[in-house]
Amino acid sequence: MASKLLQKKLSEEFKRDQVLTAKEELACYSYDSGIYTLFHYFEPDAAVLAKSVNDVIKTLAIARELKVPVVPRGAGTGQAGGALAPTGGICLDLSGWKDIEQVMPEDYQAFVRPGVTLDELNKAFAPYGLYLPPDPSSGSACTIGGMAANNTAGQRSLKYGAMDRFVMGLEVVLPTGEVVTLGGKQARVIKSVSGLDMKTGLFVGSEGILGVITGIRVKMAPVPPARAGILFLSADKKSVPALIREVYKAGVVFSACEFVLVQPSAEGTVAKNLSDLRLPSPLEMVLLMEFEGNLPGVAWELNRAKEIAASFAGTSTVAESREQMQRLWFLLDEAEGGVMGSRPGTKRTPGGEDIVVPPSRLIEALDGIQQLVGKAGVACVNFGHAVFGNIHTGLLIKPDDAEEMKKVETLIDGIHALALALNGSTTGEHGTGIVRSPLLTQEHGQAAEMMRRVKNLFDPDNIMNPGKILPADRR
Amino acid sequence: MASKLLQKKLSEEFKRDQVLTAKEELACYSYDSGIYTLFHYFEPDAAVLAKSVNDVIKTLAIARELKVPVVPRGAGTGQAGGALAPTGGICLDLSGWKDIEQVMPEDYQAFVRPGVTLDELNKAFAPYGLYLPPDPSSGSACTIGGMAANNTAGQRSLKYGAMDRFVMGLEVVLPTGEVVTLGGKQARVIKSVSGLDMKTGLFVGSEGILGVITGIRVKMAPVPPARAGILFLSADKKSVPALIREVYKAGVVFSACEFVLVQPSAEGTVAKNLSDLRLPSPLEMVLLMEFEGNLPGVAWELNRAKEIAASFAGTSTVAESREQMQRLWFLLDEAEGGVMGSRPGTKRTPGGEDIVVPPSRLIEALDGIQQLVGKAGVACVNFGHAVFGNIHTGLLIKPDDAEEMKKVETLIDGIHALALALNGSTTGEHGTGIVRSPLLTQEHGQAAEMMRRVKNLFDPDNIMNPGKILPADRR
Repeated sequence: MASKLLQKKLSEEFKRDQVLTAKEELACYSYDSGIYTLFHYFEPDAAVLAKSVNDVIKTLAIARELKVPVVPRGAGTGQAGGALAPTGGICLDLSGWKDIEQVMPEDYQAFVRPGVTLDELNKAFAPYGLYLPPDPSSGSACTIGGMAANNTAGQRSLKYGAMDRFVMGLEVVLPTGEVVTLGGKQARVIKSVSGLDMKTGLFVGSEGILGVITGIRVKMAPVPPARAGILFLSADKKSVPALIREVYKAGVVFSACEFVLVQPSAEGTVAKNLSDLRLPSPLEMVLLMEFEGNLPGVAWELNRAKEIAASFAGTSTVAESREQMQRLWFLLDEAEGGVMGSRPGTKRTPGGEDIVVPPSRLIEALDGIQQLVGKAGVACVNFGHAVFGNIHTGLLIKPDDAEEMKKVETLIDGIHALALALNGSTTGEHGTGIVRSPLLTQEHGQAAEMMRRVKNLFDPDNIMNPGKILPADRR
Repeated sequence: MASKLLQKKLSEEFKRDQVLTAKEELACYSYDSGIYTLFHYFEPDAAVLAKSVNDVIKTLAIARELKVPVVPRGAGTGQAGGALAPTGGICLDLSGWKDIEQVMPEDYQAFVRPGVTLDELNKAFAPYGLYLPPDPSSGSACTIGGMAANNTAGQRSLKYGAMDRFVMGLEVVLPTGEVVTLGGKQARVIKSVSGLDMKTGLFVGSEGILGVITGIRVKMAPVPPARAGILFLSADKKSVPALIREVYKAGVVFSACEFVLVQPSAEGTVAKNLSDLRLPSPLEMVLLMEFEGNLPGVAWELNRAKEIAASFAGTSTVAESREQMQRLWFLLDEAEGGVMGSRPGTKRTPGGEDIVVPPSRLIEALDGIQQLVGKAGVACVNFGHAVFGNIHTGLLIKPDDAEEMKKVETLIDGIHALALALNGSTTGEHGTGIVRSPLLTQEHGQAAEMMRRVKNLFDPDNIMNPGKILPADRR
């Protein structure tokens, strides 16, 4: 009923092709790239295809009037349920709003609308040798708006930082309908500390709970001329953190430092996928160290890493160019694929998939995850960003097996609890979303209450993406 | 009278040696490193030498009861008046609270109390080859608490980022007396996106207006093994931005890129100071480009920069090592000193000293400043961070000449207005403080109102450092 009224109001305000209300259309908004939708099916009551600030203002006015949620959405590549509509309302689809309004290569920046994808932005700057470094590995789909809202990081954020380092300004529409420019109303600077910085931290990474990001002024960086790296197959995973520390502290700056854990049960399938390489025995972990910069610089880094790795148990394969690096990344994928082969006939699904622990506790965390996974009677792929201690867990599960799925829910809770017990965090880069909002107070204590106060300040009616980051009210 | 009551209350709560009330003691809190105290003399009614969370809680309780301001202060090295007490109250001196509570080299982090200086922190981590990159050039004095509160950047922030990239967690005491841990209550991670991030942006850089920072969990980085650079004396300042762009886009990563403007009137004194070098004619700008990393990498960068510089009008001097770089930095200082010599008998004072403009408008901004300075009948040194378009202006003035000082006030307003007119910002790294708070709304529009709302949320009685960032209420 409420839903019918909402659809009617939207139809009055918007052109026919901007409002979706048909069941089969709304189903397109029922998923993201995470596990949550395996357990729950949600759809919004309507979707608005917004392509202007005015579209956003009109949508928020209707939402305020009817007190219905507004869920901003980019490409739906998130894994934390941030773009899902658990309590219905309006999905504000910003993915079609694709204007690259200003390309300013001499000032190393762009002003873009939220639906521009990472690849589209980078294509516009390629003639100038500039690009946007944060890369969540979904550049052809993920939108700059979504990247800002989720403070996207990715493999190379170790070296370059996440989106909060590149967002220089934002245009946002608050739930009240106010349009606010953050970072200086006329500014085109790439550094400023004027005023309280409400873009970095507060809006960047706020997952749509404070307002709608309608414009992003983003800093671009020169493309590094060279890339090199080393794939290290470790016979002793326990020694890997020490290896990483030695390389790092020798003055080598990783552009990426990725690992794949090879459980004993997966060793056979991984070995098969990597059969072109000289394999150590046992094979416990695959580590990819990548370096970016100028050619002599990365050659030195590669050489240092190789020298240091030689004193650790394992074998190395090197890449001296961007082209050769593609092979190492492919081999890393093959290692992941090999681990997946350890439980055939299952679906790989992110779940408890983004914990971070202090770097020195990486192995302890991996062992803990394996124990929990074993207890649940499933399997998993563990990979991630080693220097950060950020572990991505891909569960190998049978979604149609209801009993197993119950155990999987417990397993995910267990992984998150493990992270907190190890002085870690439940999410390194994917965000809190719905899936981790119940843990917010446990992780942040009194700070969670402060977050709630900030949310109430900006959105007293709680229409902006309710239930994300902050747990839904229990009433 | 109010002041007497305050002093009495503090004396009851604190040991005698923790409370300062004598005129000559309070005078020590009447200055910072900026220009504001040339125009105004302020002192607090009392100072508390805080050395524990409890000291801070007790101070805030008294301030709430008596409704007096609390001004947190580190070493007083700021230039924006952030640590001054324009309306009296309590100066909360945190500079003596020097505990480095946790040194965690394997996790690349430390937990420290606010009075630890940058040099003290770096000394503690030197055995592990780690350091904290942001460096405001006052490491022997400036405190980590002050660096966090002001989001310190410095010469090398172009490559490494400012404090917001290194603060992983904060312990803060809110004006209400609540103690809150930001960044995860038990976390020892160096990456997390859990929850709304209220440390980066909101507390880092908040200049003490939201609460008191009592603990800082800070990420440390490996010391780069090599440094090199080039000092370029330009005969044509207008071409310098293009030179910088070409070098930057060739894949050279500056660790610093500093300029000193040589006005025609200063050419003689600068030439004298740089007489060991081959000088171009005219000499319009001195540019120092520095590179950090591994030796072959920085050698390549130096060579590329040299090649590119060769096609611009000017002369180059190179440094191939850390030791040789010291000489280039010394020469850059000498260039600054030479410009100062252009108006002998004056005091060099920062004023309008931290504007930023879009990188492509650097020369336009410098020309504008020169015009304004000429109109005021004074002189100045202009130096700064070239890639950022961040201009530090040191005014060469006679503080005892009342008429001149009136013109100087107008001049400073003019410089700030110029920055905004050029799509710039009034402050790149020094902060808003008192000196730029009157310009907040002009720079930020509606966002300034949002900042006020956030301030009111955390500090409804406006006891935390009132008049900083947000202009004082006019009532």
